[in-house]
Amino acid sequence: MTTTINGASHARNIRARVAERVARLRHDGHLPGLATILVGDDPASAVYVAAKRRAIREAGMRDFHRHLPQHATQDAVAEVIDELAADPDVSGILLQLPLAAHLDAAALIDRIPVTKDVDGLTTASAGRLARGERGLRPCTPSGVIELLDAEGIELKGACVAVVGWGELVGRPLSQLLLRRGATVTVAHEFTTDLAAVTRPTDVVVVATGVRGLIGPEHVKPGATIIDVGIHRTPGGLTGDVRAAELDGIAGRITPVPGGVGPMTIAMLLVNTLQAAEWAAEQEAAVPA
Amino acid sequence: MTTTINGASHARNIRARVAERVARLRHDGHLPGLATILVGDDPASAVYVAAKRRAIREAGMRDFHRHLPQHATQDAVAEVIDELAADPDVSGILLQLPLAAHLDAAALIDRIPVTKDVDGLTTASAGRLARGERGLRPCTPSGVIELLDAEGIELKGACVAVVGWGELVGRPLSQLLLRRGATVTVAHEFTTDLAAVTRPTDVVVVATGVRGLIGPEHVKPGATIIDVGIHRTPGGLTGDVRAAELDGIAGRITPVPGGVGPMTIAMLLVNTLQAAEWAAEQEAAVPA
Repeated sequence: MTTTINGASHARNIRARVAERVARLRHDGHLPGLATILVGDDPASAVYVAAKRRAIREAGMRDFHRHLPQHATQDAVAEVIDELAADPDVSGILLQLPLAAHLDAAALIDRIPVTKDVDGLTTASAGRLARGERGLRPCTPSGVIELLDAEGIELKGACVAVVGWGELVGRPLSQLLLRRGATVTVAHEFTTDLAAVTRPTDVVVVATGVRGLIGPEHVKPGATIIDVGIHRTPGGLTGDVRAAELDGIAGRITPVPGGVGPMTIAMLLVNTLQAAEWAAEQEAAVPA
Repeated sequence: MTTTINGASHARNIRARVAERVARLRHDGHLPGLATILVGDDPASAVYVAAKRRAIREAGMRDFHRHLPQHATQDAVAEVIDELAADPDVSGILLQLPLAAHLDAAALIDRIPVTKDVDGLTTASAGRLARGERGLRPCTPSGVIELLDAEGIELKGACVAVVGWGELVGRPLSQLLLRRGATVTVAHEFTTDLAAVTRPTDVVVVATGVRGLIGPEHVKPGATIIDVGIHRTPGGLTGDVRAAELDGIAGRITPVPGGVGPMTIAMLLVNTLQAAEWAAEQEAAVPA
């Protein structure tokens, strides 16, 4: 029997807990707020930003939004970031990716102060993660960890394969798993025998962008499979895992959609709340 | 037949190449210099610092050194770092570790400007490594990579086990190996079956601080074994690997001493030179 992990349900629980803490913070005069920045009119990006803003409002937080034209210059985007960075009502800043090719995305991301970096993508946040210092972690990998925790999967001493070593998921996730005491193998496009790497492991997390990459030949019976991939097909959304073929083999598996996706937005709310709480702490520590 | 990797010889080659580039820089008026900071009188630390200073002078670079008393305050050490940070003749700053317990080592390390962080241990350098940006990498892990390159070991597609996930070696090394296209497994104290993890791999790098941890049961015949451990025993220096037991099993193995150790100092010279070259570049780019 393969259990389908209900990411939507876990995400709802997290969002409800966030909303409670937001209500408390609001009562103390520290209402958290997220500023989303969308450059251009890419339909997928617009959908993602709208979903994030809706979740922020539903959690009772303030929704700041800036929409810049597709041809906005580096300086224009930088100016918006600087303005939001200086605004004490803005707890977190999210620059929706990808950006147009004429913009230097890395430089713009690094302009976000580490204290407001709710996507956890700045060099400063990466450094804090690498050194195990307090900081905001990227949303999708921390959503994966939350999902494993919520399902009661013991990570300490577990063997985990991370398939895909991208900046958004694989790299930070492998570090988060190691901090939790998992033995971690990272596989990627240059891995010569992927099945040999994944088959002995208790948990396989797949974030490659290669549709249907993982099948029964890669999975130990009873293993937990986390599918971070998302692909639009004529038949609907599908992931990096051939989920139907793993039925009866995997112990637990995340569906696409409804698995990791909802957790990513939930963790964005957690990060925005966290940033607001740390800012309030900071304010309390400094005499007026 | 097991080949003993001659780290001392590889290190000599690197140091000779560094000395040539130093001579060129000196000719252009950009003589590199390293500032070592030693706090207290720990004999082992004194020996390490003396060895680094000797190597710096032998490469033709300037040797700046500050010796502070054991009871030096946080502010006193910070002041010395700030002074060296502001000195244009100082290309690199090395704060010898470990520091006395009354000092906040992480805060002092992070005071070193990223451009002079020749140990690669600041949060900023860790972030640059994590994001794959230009920067100075920690000396021991980059020494391990140089050693593997010098021995002609192909890393792209190779399976590598990193045993030990410490801040100085395992963490940065696993990222350097992944950037080179290796499939990397990181094992550590919570790993339940170490032999199962290491036995399938082509290269095993051991940096655990556990004397004699790795033996024949952990090694595939023909694998390359890199021993980063160093332990003082009545019988002399020894490592984390039971090297004698691997004779005839390992394909290549680093000795202790004379394996990774000499490479660490060589890479400190490389980093100091690199910092000086980048500073000269920067100077050339900014109109006087």
